[in-house]
Amino acid sequence: VTKAAVKKNDSMADIAAALREAGSILLFPHILMDGDAIGSAAALCLSLRAAGHESWVVIEDQIAANLAFLAHGTCLRVEEAAKRFPHGADLSLCIDCGEESRFPARQELYRAGRRSVCLDHHPTSAGIADLNYIDPAAAATGEIVYDLLTAGGLPLDRTTAGCLFAAIATDTGNFTYSNTTSRSHEITVALMDCGIDVNAICVQLYESIPLAKLRLEAAVFAELELIADGRAAIAAVTREMLQRCGARMEDTDGLVERMRSLRGVQIAVLLKEVDAECIKAAMRAKTHGDVAAIACRHGGGGHVKAAGCTLHDNLAAVRSLLGREVEEALAGAPEDGD
Amino acid sequence: VTKAAVKKNDSMADIAAALREAGSILLFPHILMDGDAIGSAAALCLSLRAAGHESWVVIEDQIAANLAFLAHGTCLRVEEAAKRFPHGADLSLCIDCGEESRFPARQELYRAGRRSVCLDHHPTSAGIADLNYIDPAAAATGEIVYDLLTAGGLPLDRTTAGCLFAAIATDTGNFTYSNTTSRSHEITVALMDCGIDVNAICVQLYESIPLAKLRLEAAVFAELELIADGRAAIAAVTREMLQRCGARMEDTDGLVERMRSLRGVQIAVLLKEVDAECIKAAMRAKTHGDVAAIACRHGGGGHVKAAGCTLHDNLAAVRSLLGREVEEALAGAPEDGD
Repeated sequence: VTKAAVKKNDSMADIAAALREAGSILLFPHILMDGDAIGSAAALCLSLRAAGHESWVVIEDQIAANLAFLAHGTCLRVEEAAKRFPHGADLSLCIDCGEESRFPARQELYRAGRRSVCLDHHPTSAGIADLNYIDPAAAATGEIVYDLLTAGGLPLDRTTAGCLFAAIATDTGNFTYSNTTSRSHEITVALMDCGIDVNAICVQLYESIPLAKLRLEAAVFAELELIADGRAAIAAVTREMLQRCGARMEDTDGLVERMRSLRGVQIAVLLKEVDAECIKAAMRAKTHGDVAAIACRHGGGGHVKAAGCTLHDNLAAVRSLLGREVEEALAGAPEDGD
Repeated sequence: VTKAAVKKNDSMADIAAALREAGSILLFPHILMDGDAIGSAAALCLSLRAAGHESWVVIEDQIAANLAFLAHGTCLRVEEAAKRFPHGADLSLCIDCGEESRFPARQELYRAGRRSVCLDHHPTSAGIADLNYIDPAAAATGEIVYDLLTAGGLPLDRTTAGCLFAAIATDTGNFTYSNTTSRSHEITVALMDCGIDVNAICVQLYESIPLAKLRLEAAVFAELELIADGRAAIAAVTREMLQRCGARMEDTDGLVERMRSLRGVQIAVLLKEVDAECIKAAMRAKTHGDVAAIACRHGGGGHVKAAGCTLHDNLAAVRSLLGREVEEALAGAPEDGD
């Protein structure tokens, strides 16, 4: 959490005023949208439309199947948006991201906006817009959007509230991650007062798992290995397993977190065989251990408790190498670290 | 939710007064304690101790490994409690249950109390105590305990607050189930203001899964079958699978819920082979379908969306019978019911 980023924030009032003055507003969430990206973008778009603005969420890739219900007709492909706004919009608003590289095929349209705003909660956000509100203490960009709607007197109906709930719920792991604050719960109280059906939203978010994903999980867990005296778990997803289960590499989402949830396990490593000599490693730490240090050694990066890297060697060699490094990383950690 | 049960509630003030007058208070949560049972019992016990009472949570079975951290030295086996309180306590308090059959080996000690109180949120609760507070609208008994501590001016420190958070989080599926109310979030705000570490609690609750459980899950998911045109999932846990994975039948906890979370699946059925001619069926419904109706037909019971029964036939016969009944139950349900 960089204090610097917080300091250069413009006020919610100034940002609300900039929105009020803009007839057309295009929103730019990051690629590979998660629940916070699509949820907070759709919510802001719906609210701006209800307040009389012309607004769209401009996208360049597919929305994940379990998040598609959050779009509510707000999304427009970048090709179509460029046709409708050949000279850009009155306002470009990048949301849940703060770097142009996070919306690579939309940079031109973003820059064409007469004015720009950035709303984000990532500490790495650079403050690229004319007006920026970057709050790394917010558990989700959805919380920032809620505050903006309140500060700007923008409408918040049941559908909009549902999108903000989805944004906050997904980014906090349903209020279990360490980024969760009492503010996350306070905002949720206000959203529930709008009449949202929390369970119906969660069924759509979490209960539409493809069978192929479950089969892949079964294949991975059947072969998973405990190392470092049971304090680390390592497993691999091979191309053969994907084929056998009818799964895609995206279906590994969430797998390494489940591996970390094993009793006694401090570090979990999931190896993804992209091709014979290209292995992506996803790593998670529980209480002890710094997986970012391991990832950085191999040209990767991330956070202390969630990091990744790509290695150019065969699966057996990578498994043995990273297994050794994880054992070394845990050598100094307390025994009963669960 | 029975209005009758709500109507005969005594006031929080009267219950708080009864607690104040009692020197010794024994708490009786139900057998097979879940997070709400041990969390709300331990919280009330800790608070009563801090207020100068002699208080214990009397138990007759083991606490699940992932919930043991919530006991905080409050739990006493019934044999030991009977020795220390040969004539019972000043007050017996049954918590998160309202029937003596829910604490079978502790009934005598419960009845020996000079006075009794019942705090519960189960709608089937019978109001067996001198003073009863049964609120089926509460997502967890932990919420009722929070209100009682507040009404009675009883102490609420960080440890006590952590127990109440665990009670509410586990009984609401981390705020995703339909029993979650804005009150659940409001109380959580107050608990977080006591300084609890939500993430540390959730790591202890959810990230201590035995490897044998993960292996069993893999074995079950590898053989799981979709029936009724993909609108139902059926799978079996055999004694051979338990042996192969080094797992116990308790390790099937949560499995049928994960089966229900499959895309398109409206009903999930998990068959547990207790012995060659005794099969327990756990059933869950998502949006459509009434699994209680199926369970009742076979002498079982439960709720519309969560029910179970025991059948005395071999696994293949039970699988085929229940498979047919599930197909019939879904015959009238909408096609796109996800």
